[in-house]
Amino acid sequence: MPPKVLQNNLDVDFVIKYKIDSKDKAASAQQFQGLIRCLAQLDLQTEVRAGDDSSLFVFVKAKSDESFGDVVYRSRIRDWLHGVRQIQPVKEAVGTLTEAPLTEAERLRIVHDMITAQRIDGGAGITPNYGEWKNVEAIFPLHNHDRNKKWLAEWSKKTFLTPDDLDELRNAVGEKIAYYYAFLQSYFQFLMFPAAFGASVKILLGNFSPVYMIGIGMWSVIFVEYWKRQEKELSVRWGVKNVGTLEAKRREFQPEKVHKDPITGEDMASFPSKTRLQRQLLQIPLAMISAIALGLVICTCYAIEVFISEVYSGPLKSVLVFSPTILLTVCVPTVSGFLTKYAEQLTNYENYETQGAHDKAMISKVFVINFITSYLAIFLTSFVYVPFASILVPYLDVFSLTVKPFAEDDKQIRAPTAAQFSINPQRLPNQMFYFAVTAQVISLATETIVPILTRKGGDKIESMKSSASKRSGGAHPSIAATDHAEEKDFLTRVREEASLPEYDVTSDLREMCIQFGYLTLFSVVWPLTPVSYFINNWFELRGDTFKLTIESRRPVPERADSIGPWLSSLEFLAWLGSITSAALVYMFSDGGLGPDGRPSKIKLGFLMLSVFFSEHTFLIFRNVVRHAISKLDSANMRKEKSERFMVRRKFLQDAGLGDAVKPLETPSDSVLKTINAARATGLDRRSLEEDARNDSLHDSTSSSRFWNRQRGWQESETVGLRMIEMMESVGERKMK
Amino acid sequence: MPPKVLQNNLDVDFVIKYKIDSKDKAASAQQFQGLIRCLAQLDLQTEVRAGDDSSLFVFVKAKSDESFGDVVYRSRIRDWLHGVRQIQPVKEAVGTLTEAPLTEAERLRIVHDMITAQRIDGGAGITPNYGEWKNVEAIFPLHNHDRNKKWLAEWSKKTFLTPDDLDELRNAVGEKIAYYYAFLQSYFQFLMFPAAFGASVKILLGNFSPVYMIGIGMWSVIFVEYWKRQEKELSVRWGVKNVGTLEAKRREFQPEKVHKDPITGEDMASFPSKTRLQRQLLQIPLAMISAIALGLVICTCYAIEVFISEVYSGPLKSVLVFSPTILLTVCVPTVSGFLTKYAEQLTNYENYETQGAHDKAMISKVFVINFITSYLAIFLTSFVYVPFASILVPYLDVFSLTVKPFAEDDKQIRAPTAAQFSINPQRLPNQMFYFAVTAQVISLATETIVPILTRKGGDKIESMKSSASKRSGGAHPSIAATDHAEEKDFLTRVREEASLPEYDVTSDLREMCIQFGYLTLFSVVWPLTPVSYFINNWFELRGDTFKLTIESRRPVPERADSIGPWLSSLEFLAWLGSITSAALVYMFSDGGLGPDGRPSKIKLGFLMLSVFFSEHTFLIFRNVVRHAISKLDSANMRKEKSERFMVRRKFLQDAGLGDAVKPLETPSDSVLKTINAARATGLDRRSLEEDARNDSLHDSTSSSRFWNRQRGWQESETVGLRMIEMMESVGERKMK
Repeated sequence: MPPKVLQNNLDVDFVIKYKIDSKDKAASAQQFQGLIRCLAQLDLQTEVRAGDDSSLFVFVKAKSDESFGDVVYRSRIRDWLHGVRQIQPVKEAVGTLTEAPLTEAERLRIVHDMITAQRIDGGAGITPNYGEWKNVEAIFPLHNHDRNKKWLAEWSKKTFLTPDDLDELRNAVGEKIAYYYAFLQSYFQFLMFPAAFGASVKILLGNFSPVYMIGIGMWSVIFVEYWKRQEKELSVRWGVKNVGTLEAKRREFQPEKVHKDPITGEDMASFPSKTRLQRQLLQIPLAMISAIALGLVICTCYAIEVFISEVYSGPLKSVLVFSPTILLTVCVPTVSGFLTKYAEQLTNYENYETQGAHDKAMISKVFVINFITSYLAIFLTSFVYVPFASILVPYLDVFSLTVKPFAEDDKQIRAPTAAQFSINPQRLPNQMFYFAVTAQVISLATETIVPILTRKGGDKIESMKSSASKRSGGAHPSIAATDHAEEKDFLTRVREEASLPEYDVTSDLREMCIQFGYLTLFSVVWPLTPVSYFINNWFELRGDTFKLTIESRRPVPERADSIGPWLSSLEFLAWLGSITSAALVYMFSDGGLGPDGRPSKIKLGFLMLSVFFSEHTFLIFRNVVRHAISKLDSANMRKEKSERFMVRRKFLQDAGLGDAVKPLETPSDSVLKTINAARATGLDRRSLEEDARNDSLHDSTSSSRFWNRQRGWQESETVGLRMIEMMESVGERKMK
Repeated sequence: MPPKVLQNNLDVDFVIKYKIDSKDKAASAQQFQGLIRCLAQLDLQTEVRAGDDSSLFVFVKAKSDESFGDVVYRSRIRDWLHGVRQIQPVKEAVGTLTEAPLTEAERLRIVHDMITAQRIDGGAGITPNYGEWKNVEAIFPLHNHDRNKKWLAEWSKKTFLTPDDLDELRNAVGEKIAYYYAFLQSYFQFLMFPAAFGASVKILLGNFSPVYMIGIGMWSVIFVEYWKRQEKELSVRWGVKNVGTLEAKRREFQPEKVHKDPITGEDMASFPSKTRLQRQLLQIPLAMISAIALGLVICTCYAIEVFISEVYSGPLKSVLVFSPTILLTVCVPTVSGFLTKYAEQLTNYENYETQGAHDKAMISKVFVINFITSYLAIFLTSFVYVPFASILVPYLDVFSLTVKPFAEDDKQIRAPTAAQFSINPQRLPNQMFYFAVTAQVISLATETIVPILTRKGGDKIESMKSSASKRSGGAHPSIAATDHAEEKDFLTRVREEASLPEYDVTSDLREMCIQFGYLTLFSVVWPLTPVSYFINNWFELRGDTFKLTIESRRPVPERADSIGPWLSSLEFLAWLGSITSAALVYMFSDGGLGPDGRPSKIKLGFLMLSVFFSEHTFLIFRNVVRHAISKLDSANMRKEKSERFMVRRKFLQDAGLGDAVKPLETPSDSVLKTINAARATGLDRRSLEEDARNDSLHDSTSSSRFWNRQRGWQESETVGLRMIEMMESVGERKMK
């Protein structure tokens, strides 16, 4: 009896969208045949329906309970073999699994594996958009709309999600996405503290407060260390610890050689790590090119903007001041796009064995690109514009070209001398406000509202086109006309879901990471930043749920035991924050600049000294927090340790070896027995010694002679007591 | 048949030295009885001989092969239960162990466990110098003098020890000490590079060279990371990985409550970690007091020394200049001794559960104390004396009291003004030479030669006393007279070994750690430092072997999988080195001081900037090296991974579950069979659809209706191919 939740979806596990290539029907047909046959071999039931005008839907379901139960069992055994699962799985029929019921996510994951795993691993080997299956456009599960609606409705009423909510999410969409939600939830809860703290600091102390800097530094350390621990707890709770060892090889992986592992007998495809390390060194030039390219674009636009807003005084100023912003909005995504493409190529060249390693390498490159695009502008304002503007601005008249057409006379574009110029003290707070509030609102809207409008707009255009063609040309039956009456709604829904984009949890994690960076690096500029982020993140979680359930295809559940390399990014940003916050506080507190804005009071020595102390205090505090957290025990950790112990102990008991340790009886009982036994036989020391001497004639090693002088412990005891008495006498004699 | 090596020692496993309390003979006698009986219960054979005038020797040997084989088996099962041992042990008789022969160290360790483990753990519960066994003075094994001589002779001829030598050492004295030798050997081999590099820098570039600073920084990172990896490799090779989980509770541990673990059913004694964390916070005041106390002593002596050598100009100067050194040599060990005692008390108060955790906490405190005593003087010279002497020296006349008795007139003790004073540029290089060369020679001599002289002197005094008493008083038979003739030599040797001190590997590790610190922190001052250390360490290893085999009792073998907390100390010293080296190079390169020694050229800003860059470059480099080393595979690691996999796989196979994965046959064969079978039955689509409609009258779920429209894969294939054809037509129609 399949779980109830699948009833709406007519028990469909996966939908395969198969595209027909209009130029080569015969090949498409042949590939289609192969597809059906491969699926049939695995006991997967298939149904074919029309998709749209040029594609078919192949609905896939795991057929019978018994053979599927076998597949589930084998998957769990594999987990157990690799140490991901501690307790040995039992072979049960799928419908009656009692000990570890099959969650929806696990079922979908296993069926997806059946479809996509390589043939030698026991799968069908269907690889979408690749190789012999390039007509297979997508393989996706169907949404459970009732549950999605329930989530959106319920979560919009709550402030915090409960661990049960997260478990429910994990059972539906898999651990990788559930980790993102768990992280978002932790981050949201933790944001309460800097929000409250920042609000009070803003009221009592104002901007650039050292108190706030210390508070935010401590908070960032505690949050990151807490989250690292929370990840481990969840990995035990969700049973995915060390799941990274289980990954299959990437299909794009090109090994240098394949040999048999002498111990396990399995084939080992290998690629020498030295070669990979050499290829990884190419990341350095890539990083430098990214920095230079993006840096040039951003710095140029920034300089133009400063020129227009603070030097130029002619007509159309209020309009022209947006031109660099427009330039930026056009150039930066283009350049980033190029760089991301090169990053992808380089990561492919680095030839990672598993998708996890590949993603990790890709993410670290993407982080560098995003770091520059997100933070360079505000870096420039804090550390270049404010200290050095009065020196640099007179050189800005090179940019007069950009406004020459509009200027009325030369005076409007002439740069002031260093003495005349005074910086705009509002630039930095304004910029921070933009990143804290405006940018977040825009981003939220872009994520949630714009796709809806795009789709509605696209639908409208489609319907207008079809009504236009209906009016103009003859009727031609669309494929949709072949639907059965009772399946019409269902198939319309499937077609709609098939047209949605895929859900990518990485971009959401990246967003939160960059936001965290603003908090640690620059929020000393405007202490209400965490308040804004706190409010934003409440909407963010619901917005992401909306995106996941309504605006994207249902994702294939994947397992993970961490949010991945973003964790290192968080640690790096917290560390960098200790440096930039100290520099900002030193430079700007008490209006650290002179009245004309010139940085006469900023001394490099004291600046570096405050950075030095701030950074090292941060590191010491971080070590203390790590130590304290590692000592805190938890129910989950104990449970895991005990489970590992029990695995082996059970094995021992099954093999009938009993307990490995038996404590001694109290000495008195057994010793008394021996004493009585000895007395009964009437042995005494002299006769034993004689026996010893007699034996010694036969046994000639000095060792055995040594060990036979006192037979049995009673003799040793007796001899010893006599020696003690003798010593007494000697002692007394000495005293005389 | 016991292993041959024990023949000289008459197969004695352990010697228990039992002290008779002359004031309470009855209690001593009773305790002695208890001792013999406890040992007897465990099937340990005992022999009692006279020790010296107030003690007995109880010789202990594991009696029979079978019951001892049982104990060995249980100990290995326990290792296996806790994951230290991967391959399940087999129960064999001790003499015939083939798969994993019993090394000497393992045998001694197991017998020692039998003697000292608590009764509930199956041991005899003999705790030397503690509780009910306070008359038991020591439990120690006997040296194998032949093998010791062989080691000393062989190793004096070689430059490098081979891995087989280390294995032999480990089989004799246990992993904990073997790790020290392995570390010393690695460190010695690595020292070749800075020695060669430093020698060339000294010739070509001179002192305070930035090239040397970069070289030493890179070397320290690579060495520490290499050693961390080497530790892991050795732990796999020696089968001690994760051995820390196996430790027994300290007897001094005072749990707050004892409860039963619900899963394993074992008793869990626990002490809340929050309380311990609070107690650990007391380390902060202790560290500050140590810093202040030692700092005061060292600074005062330093100031007096500067005063006398550079200000004072009266008679007896060459003699008086040593007085602060004498003061230092007297005060510092006294103050350190006090602080170490308080550290011990605090560590006891922190109430650690295992000896390993206790040692770790103790070592970190001891490191702080040693750090101050070793490095403070040269810190003062580099960062206080040289930059600030001209400001501080005029205030030094407070110390004129120390020389007033000797001075002839006031002029000799008046401090010069700032303008008159010029620093002694040789102070720093001289001090470095002392630490690099002189101090090492003194230390080596102290370790090896002085104990010999002390013992020979002590023996001489003893023999003089006894001949004096022979001449003066009457004859009284010494206990030694009761020896059997053929045991005389043996017992004299045992008495000699019993009088030796215990071997402490921690102090040797501490020495090497401090030496490494001088290398990373200060060797830019004198680049020939590593040459001196390279030569010294060759002697150090042989000297330590001498200390281990001749000058100390044979240690009880202990297991460890690391050199312990000293590894963190090495990492810390490497890091600190990146800071101090940069500061020194900046301050002193090109004679960074003005001609009169005044630090006019040292700018705080640039100093901090160079420190900033040096430190962060160091950290980046360290991350790169860590990443590179972690990617290097090794035979040992692969072996370990495979072993863990095989454990579980073997279990599966034993349980008859066969392989967990079976690859699919090629589609063609099985599918062809199905096709033929289907054709044979002559089914076609129409009849199947009819069947479906008939069924649907009985089965009313929409899901089953959906899934029954195409029965079997052949129908799906047929329907799909028809749809593809239809699409073709639609596409063509559209084009018309």
